Amino acid sequence: MSDTTSHPNPRLNTEVVSDALLGKWKRERLESRALVADPRLQTINGQTMDDHRERVLGQLGILVEEGAIQRAFPSDLGGSDNHGGNIAAFQELVLADPSMQIKSGVQWGLFGAAILHLGTRPHHEQWLPDVMSLKLPGAFAMTEIGHGSDVASVGTTATYDPETEEFEIHTPFTGAWKEFLGNAALHGQAAVVFAQLITQDVNHGVHAFFVPIRTPDGTLLPGVGSEDDGVKGGLNGIDNGRLHFTHVRIPRTNLLNRYGDVAPDGTYSSPIESPGRRFFTMIGTLVQGRVSLDGSAVKAMMAALTIAIRYGSERRQFPGASGRETVLMDYGLHQRRLIPRLAETYAMAFASERLLTVFDEVFSGAKDTDENREDLETLAAAFKPLSTWAALDTLQEAREATGGAGFIAKNRLVGLRADLDIYVTFEGDNNVLLQLVGKRLLTDYAQQFAGGDKAALAKAAASQLGDRVSRFGLRQLGQSIADLGQMARSVESLRSPEAQRALLADRVETMVAEIAQALREGTKHVPKGDKRGYAQASEDAFNAQQHKLIQAARAHAELLQWEAFTDGIEQITDPGSRQVLTWLRDLFGFELIERHAAWYLVQGRISGQRATAVTAYIDRLIGRLSDHALDLVDAFGLTPEMLRAEIATGIEAERQDEAHAYVEAAKAAGTWPVHEKELRKRAQEAQRREAAAQRAS
Amino acid sequence: MSDTTSHPNPRLNTEVVSDALLGKWKRERLESRALVADPRLQTINGQTMDDHRERVLGQLGILVEEGAIQRAFPSDLGGSDNHGGNIAAFQELVLADPSMQIKSGVQWGLFGAAILHLGTRPHHEQWLPDVMSLKLPGAFAMTEIGHGSDVASVGTTATYDPETEEFEIHTPFTGAWKEFLGNAALHGQAAVVFAQLITQDVNHGVHAFFVPIRTPDGTLLPGVGSEDDGVKGGLNGIDNGRLHFTHVRIPRTNLLNRYGDVAPDGTYSSPIESPGRRFFTMIGTLVQGRVSLDGSAVKAMMAALTIAIRYGSERRQFPGASGRETVLMDYGLHQRRLIPRLAETYAMAFASERLLTVFDEVFSGAKDTDENREDLETLAAAFKPLSTWAALDTLQEAREATGGAGFIAKNRLVGLRADLDIYVTFEGDNNVLLQLVGKRLLTDYAQQFAGGDKAALAKAAASQLGDRVSRFGLRQLGQSIADLGQMARSVESLRSPEAQRALLADRVETMVAEIAQALREGTKHVPKGDKRGYAQASEDAFNAQQHKLIQAARAHAELLQWEAFTDGIEQITDPGSRQVLTWLRDLFGFELIERHAAWYLVQGRISGQRATAVTAYIDRLIGRLSDHALDLVDAFGLTPEMLRAEIATGIEAERQDEAHAYVEAAKAAGTWPVHEKELRKRAQEAQRREAAAQRAS
Repeated sequence: MSDTTSHPNPRLNTEVVSDALLGKWKRERLESRALVADPRLQTINGQTMDDHRERVLGQLGILVEEGAIQRAFPSDLGGSDNHGGNIAAFQELVLADPSMQIKSGVQWGLFGAAILHLGTRPHHEQWLPDVMSLKLPGAFAMTEIGHGSDVASVGTTATYDPETEEFEIHTPFTGAWKEFLGNAALHGQAAVVFAQLITQDVNHGVHAFFVPIRTPDGTLLPGVGSEDDGVKGGLNGIDNGRLHFTHVRIPRTNLLNRYGDVAPDGTYSSPIESPGRRFFTMIGTLVQGRVSLDGSAVKAMMAALTIAIRYGSERRQFPGASGRETVLMDYGLHQRRLIPRLAETYAMAFASERLLTVFDEVFSGAKDTDENREDLETLAAAFKPLSTWAALDTLQEAREATGGAGFIAKNRLVGLRADLDIYVTFEGDNNVLLQLVGKRLLTDYAQQFAGGDKAALAKAAASQLGDRVSRFGLRQLGQSIADLGQMARSVESLRSPEAQRALLADRVETMVAEIAQALREGTKHVPKGDKRGYAQASEDAFNAQQHKLIQAARAHAELLQWEAFTDGIEQITDPGSRQVLTWLRDLFGFELIERHAAWYLVQGRISGQRATAVTAYIDRLIGRLSDHALDLVDAFGLTPEMLRAEIATGIEAERQDEAHAYVEAAKAAGTWPVHEKELRKRAQEAQRREAAAQRAS
Repeated sequence: MSDTTSHPNPRLNTEVVSDALLGKWKRERLESRALVADPRLQTINGQTMDDHRERVLGQLGILVEEGAIQRAFPSDLGGSDNHGGNIAAFQELVLADPSMQIKSGVQWGLFGAAILHLGTRPHHEQWLPDVMSLKLPGAFAMTEIGHGSDVASVGTTATYDPETEEFEIHTPFTGAWKEFLGNAALHGQAAVVFAQLITQDVNHGVHAFFVPIRTPDGTLLPGVGSEDDGVKGGLNGIDNGRLHFTHVRIPRTNLLNRYGDVAPDGTYSSPIESPGRRFFTMIGTLVQGRVSLDGSAVKAMMAALTIAIRYGSERRQFPGASGRETVLMDYGLHQRRLIPRLAETYAMAFASERLLTVFDEVFSGAKDTDENREDLETLAAAFKPLSTWAALDTLQEAREATGGAGFIAKNRLVGLRADLDIYVTFEGDNNVLLQLVGKRLLTDYAQQFAGGDKAALAKAAASQLGDRVSRFGLRQLGQSIADLGQMARSVESLRSPEAQRALLADRVETMVAEIAQALREGTKHVPKGDKRGYAQASEDAFNAQQHKLIQAARAHAELLQWEAFTDGIEQITDPGSRQVLTWLRDLFGFELIERHAAWYLVQGRISGQRATAVTAYIDRLIGRLSDHALDLVDAFGLTPEMLRAEIATGIEAERQDEAHAYVEAAKAAGTWPVHEKELRKRAQEAQRREAAAQRAS
């Protein structure tokens, strides 16, 4: 079906679209939504940190009872080996209480998942049942005060002693203390500790160890210290804290030994020979957290927009020409503030579902290849930054668009924003993740010229054109810029999905080519053999391109989101829904082009006239979509119990009706006082009439 | 002195610059900073709402004792008629606890100031001493549930009864309930209530009334109701709430009658004939709040950047080519994230001081003309939105740039952000304020063609060029676009302040002219005499331009900030400081041009080549300024007691040194284990050498 087919007065079928958004793990999502609607699992605003922590611990117990957290674990241990469904259900929990969500993520998605994915069968049998039942709460001790993004450089050591067949876990300086760990300040009885594995005087790099830290009654074990991180900007229901270890001894078998093991005599072995690849394989299990946060962020955006658009469709302010006060959503600016966010939310929702699908394929083992794992990691590193940032922006825009009411905790927006703030830097700092994507793009770009044909690389980079076809991390972008130039010149074709895609893809390709060229040129002057000089020049050149590389990665993510949105629409057969969603997708695409218009203009990809047309078309799309804004948020399917925002319940319409009825009744009864302004106008008119009458007489 | 003069290795003289930033009210600022350093006035993280409210009430008492809040009140009542100094001191308080700051703003800047500015001498004598001593805490009851930005339409009525010589204050429907008022939920004993004044069956528009609401022991008076707004996104030390009134009677003399009075028999009189102008004059006193928030926002930005830049200058992450881990502030991206914010903060600081000066001139009576009041209001409406938004963005960027540490409350960033969130919509919603500025620009534009020469207006709008000279709210922008075109073509001249100013001014002028033309064209088709049709067409046309008008207003504010920065540098004689600040000002200007590059390209104001040069120059400026980043934040003069952020105390450098010393000692002692990677590299090299030896033999 062509996107340009138009339907007279199309309407969104909210059930159809709601279903599409629920996606493949609809059942799990609905099960989780039932929990979100359960008051026992919901935030109580204004609780003290201590009370909130206690409540959240209790909520984790409820999740266990309700069978909400077992899905990802092995079937024979009480789980159901359902990785995609597990994450889908987890994402929904954000609307109950993000503290509960993230603490459950710490317990089962990090601590438990590390035992599952980095440990082996004996570990699973020994610990997972208690982890799943919450009998054994645990921390995920990876980050240190001194090392966050750079996990490979952590300072904690695990030194093997063949005499006793033990590892000695040690944090030799303050910077090596484990930091920001949920369950560390109070509830954790064990931790998966990431430390440099040292045996026979060789450091084999970072490995994970199971380390008991507290007795069940909460007493710290000998050699283990803990500090409380105290009050945070959000997520105060989680007992984040520090852990330090002073020569703490654990059995040799507490090494989670799936990717590296130490024999009783101290001999190290690993199924992965390269220490680098071994490290990245172990760290790769963290991708689960990123996939989880991505979808959670989208959920928060849905809630924010549902609240703001419902309120904005009822709220009136300033008298309009119609005689009544104008509804906020009828203001051009209000539409400009909220409707592009709606487009972005849909794009990210479809993108998130796609990411989850790839995740499930890999983690279920259905398509667990190195290449797919790498693609999964790149996709997660591309989507998680954009969606978590967009969530903060959208929550803030919704907060501002609902004015003072948005600032009151019972309307949800401020609490969600405070809690989600940390999502942009944890489970991978957003900028560091985008840099990862950027590096992947550069690698893929270079691979086109595999075989070391550096001249070809340089030439392609310099010319920045041609029919290049690259994988660019996840798929072929192939669209020749020559074609593109023709399209951008024709008036109508800019609206075709092909043209949108080509413009978005071209930007990624060209930016990557330019960065590759700049990196090469940055090291050209270094004399051959000067390794140190080359390293420094290479670092400097990269540093100079870092900002641009992040932009390229972002452009890549935007393209993939646009594609996911487009693919998502393809799955929908209802013509009205397709039409409205196609407008929304166009708005998403055109907003991206408008946002990056300077780049397109400088590169000569679009003309100034065309750029102006883009803005005009955006205005038209927004005007058209404003009639569908309520349907589009209804399709998110968020019930009142999930939203729990007073201003999204229709209360404003009731108040408007009450006020309107009061005024109308007073007018009808003749008790509505005339305004001084009106009297003055009448007096002036009378004067004019009199003067006219005098002139006439 | 020319801006292009360059000095070899210029350094910022932090004392000189600090003094310039303290500005005209240095004494008052320093007095207030001493209070900020007083632990009794500082936030305690994690307090319950109830405890925080109680503490903040107590802090207000301390402010009274310390003589911190009396400055703006009349000398003979214990004040010192010092309006500028009062606001300057108030702005500093944000770094103690924003709740305390804003609650003191409610008590003295709104409640007290309304009595002062809208009341007359008997009111001052009757109430101000108790207001100043806090014996009489009060609320400022303007906003209603149903009417926030549109104060003229509030539903509360004050109906005069000549029989008893009383006003009856009444909130006839829920939407008319006063809402979000500090001091309303608990502590207020009176309120200045804004209500439609009705006498002799005529509504004379909104006036302010002094209405007792509680006894000193906290019992609500008959007819007065109160609801608590409960937990908010921030400022939880303030007891915000609702007030409603059911036929509450107050004496006639409780009308704050400076701008409108009612005689015992019910006859209304006012020194301002036009009801519209009268309303805006009364509302005009609110400008004080906007001026206060503007400077407070700048203070928060200074704190955020001091914290992030000091931490970023100590924190290391990822091994660099130098052999040690790289300092965050040496990363290109980190510089791009923080240094332009530094430029913006300086621009806004100088702009804020200028706004405060204009405010003082008007409120001290030194230059209290209608024109100056209008200029003051426009300037406040231009600066307050940009600075309060920038504060949120800067706090957030600093939070993210400091990672997990930034999320911990004791590092200040999250608390300040949560509290300052509401600054963007209270005391005038930012978008509504910018719309006010936009309308002023349109009015000024039209006035160039005064005498009703609409043809000239249309012509000028259409041609968008010439040597137009306009006041544009505050000053002449006069810079011909013809000149500009020439400048933008030459390579060097884009760096001159004249070129920067011309580019910024041109954008304002052109946008306003285009909007004016579009507004005219939007009503052209309406048949003569069709008033209703004209009103509707006019509203539609305005609505279609609303987004663009806000952009124009923002562009105007940016120009004025740039000018204030430039003027601020002119006051500094130290050459090194001038040089560094000039780079910073250039960065501010170029960042604006880069941000709006698409507009400049579409309009043909700069070429694509020039746009690329702008970005390259920004990169160069940032690199250059990164050496001065610590000096630039030192010049903010924020002491450790004011910052109270652990990560800004040097603690990270200590940890880095400790870790470095540990590693060095272990290496020296030969106990530092070799890394498996290193062993593999050595083995490979050995193999290569062996192979080479075999080939050679």
